[in-house]
Amino acid sequence: MTSTVISRPVCILGIGLIGGSLLRDLHALGRPVYGYNRSPSGARTAAREGFDVGSDLLGTLRRAEEDGALIVLATPLPSFEELLDAIAAHAPHCGITDVASVKAPVYAMVRARGLEGRYVGGHPMAGTAHSGWKASHQGLFDAAAWVLTFDHACDATPEPEWIALWTDVARMISAVGAEAIPARVSGHDAAVARVSHLPHLLAEALAITGDNGGALALSLAAGSFRDGTRVAGTAPSLVRAMCETNSEALVTALDEALALLSDARAQLTGPSPHLHELTDAGHRSRVRFEARSGALKDSVSPIRISARPVLRVHPGGPGWERQLIQAESLGARIEVF
Amino acid sequence: MTSTVISRPVCILGIGLIGGSLLRDLHALGRPVYGYNRSPSGARTAAREGFDVGSDLLGTLRRAEEDGALIVLATPLPSFEELLDAIAAHAPHCGITDVASVKAPVYAMVRARGLEGRYVGGHPMAGTAHSGWKASHQGLFDAAAWVLTFDHACDATPEPEWIALWTDVARMISAVGAEAIPARVSGHDAAVARVSHLPHLLAEALAITGDNGGALALSLAAGSFRDGTRVAGTAPSLVRAMCETNSEALVTALDEALALLSDARAQLTGPSPHLHELTDAGHRSRVRFEARSGALKDSVSPIRISARPVLRVHPGGPGWERQLIQAESLGARIEVF
Repeated sequence: MTSTVISRPVCILGIGLIGGSLLRDLHALGRPVYGYNRSPSGARTAAREGFDVGSDLLGTLRRAEEDGALIVLATPLPSFEELLDAIAAHAPHCGITDVASVKAPVYAMVRARGLEGRYVGGHPMAGTAHSGWKASHQGLFDAAAWVLTFDHACDATPEPEWIALWTDVARMISAVGAEAIPARVSGHDAAVARVSHLPHLLAEALAITGDNGGALALSLAAGSFRDGTRVAGTAPSLVRAMCETNSEALVTALDEALALLSDARAQLTGPSPHLHELTDAGHRSRVRFEARSGALKDSVSPIRISARPVLRVHPGGPGWERQLIQAESLGARIEVF
Repeated sequence: MTSTVISRPVCILGIGLIGGSLLRDLHALGRPVYGYNRSPSGARTAAREGFDVGSDLLGTLRRAEEDGALIVLATPLPSFEELLDAIAAHAPHCGITDVASVKAPVYAMVRARGLEGRYVGGHPMAGTAHSGWKASHQGLFDAAAWVLTFDHACDATPEPEWIALWTDVARMISAVGAEAIPARVSGHDAAVARVSHLPHLLAEALAITGDNGGALALSLAAGSFRDGTRVAGTAPSLVRAMCETNSEALVTALDEALALLSDARAQLTGPSPHLHELTDAGHRSRVRFEARSGALKDSVSPIRISARPVLRVHPGGPGWERQLIQAESLGARIEVF
């Protein structure tokens, strides 16, 4: 088991669904945690509920610098440039992580400021259909995958401070019940394009095409349409924030899906319409996914059994970056010792 | 309320998921119902459970002819030609309906045998992920849409016998708790291509594209991928049976989806990647779908409230075929009086 004792306070910038849920979990565990929210009314709402949240950014950063906090960027991506500048100016010794759903643009901003040695990227794979502090709740991350990046361990010989930071991010992930999955920035972005961003594009297209069929089509729509369009209910601004910032990887995934569908179209319009290639391959793929994710879901044991393989890693130990690369290729969770 | 008293026994050919569930429901209601199953072992299983099911087709059809039963074709579509020939030969006075998921190919077979005056097409929009008698159960059709076709009322002046048959099919639908939605053959096929067959194609393509991302992608897959690929778990043979027989309407729907996705691709690869057209339209469409289907789901009342508008129809009454056309355009359920 990864120790869940984080060696420093946690300072969360932005208390929406993700940041707010992280704040609630850490607070419930009795860990030192405080937050900043741009909107004073949002900060006041959280403060009235007993959380240590304010709306003074500079004051919050100075406090983080003073107590050596781990700063978590949990605001929308467009605010990151400004926040990184403020952190560089006012909390120059703090470690930084983030929870954005795309990692390459964040890492580019980090590198542009020479902050690689103080940054570990993060991405909890947890619900996005609702947003804001009101949607935040304890337990959101339970059993969820939470990616943490390790490019700096491969690109350089990482400083002891970075290794300590990386360890603390892994511990924070374990503390809130999530599973730490190591991945490099580009591997992460390629994977989420396939399993998170592409599903949104297909859901939007399906919702519109069904709707184009008018009242009769919507009246006949049952489970397959309901499930296939569910994430089209996500606010367009959230879908755009995810997809537009990961457009390169998303286009790669989209092109694969378009090629499969175009092949299927050709076979449907041929002399004897058939779909056996698409349906056979699709079914095999779904079965493989179910096999991977099934154990977690079907277990009746009170002890949670993860469906993900586990690798034990000693941060900074000999060859640990090769272990992380192996974990990435397996989609494995890690335990830090 | 539609009367649920069917004026004749019901004879079900094929006791898989749909035919078996219909048999169970009618049996539980104490209605005269019996069935045929091609596999003797399947028939014996049902008989041991107390149902009146055999595996002698000719004997079953002669019995149906004798007691003037309503014959329900509930076998896979490829067997329909043979069964219609057998019905024409051995049960020449029986009314016929079916439960196939596509209506134009069935109607073509019916017309080729001059059986239009004895046939009303049907399609219950109920689960297909599992199949066979073992998957059948009471209550499968509760609140489900069940299309019944009425082309014969528009193409000809229907015989009183056909009107009585149509009325009995509507009553059978009501008896098992489903909602009777009138639609003509081509309107039905176009609608289900959009809301039932296209979702399967997209789910298959998504499952494969996610799987292509390897272990990391599958490890990070969460709710959006799980929901978006669920129906790829359906047996390929069932997906093919639905989609391949409705290829023309399906290609129309697929082309609309491909055009939307290709436009999105162009916008993602443009100088400033954006998705606002797709996400805005997709979100509006999903909200419209939720509004239509929401009442049924969210009601806490013990009295079931349907989200579908209702039209009261007197079969054979003046202008009733115009009422049916109106109901089709509204996706309305009907009550027969």
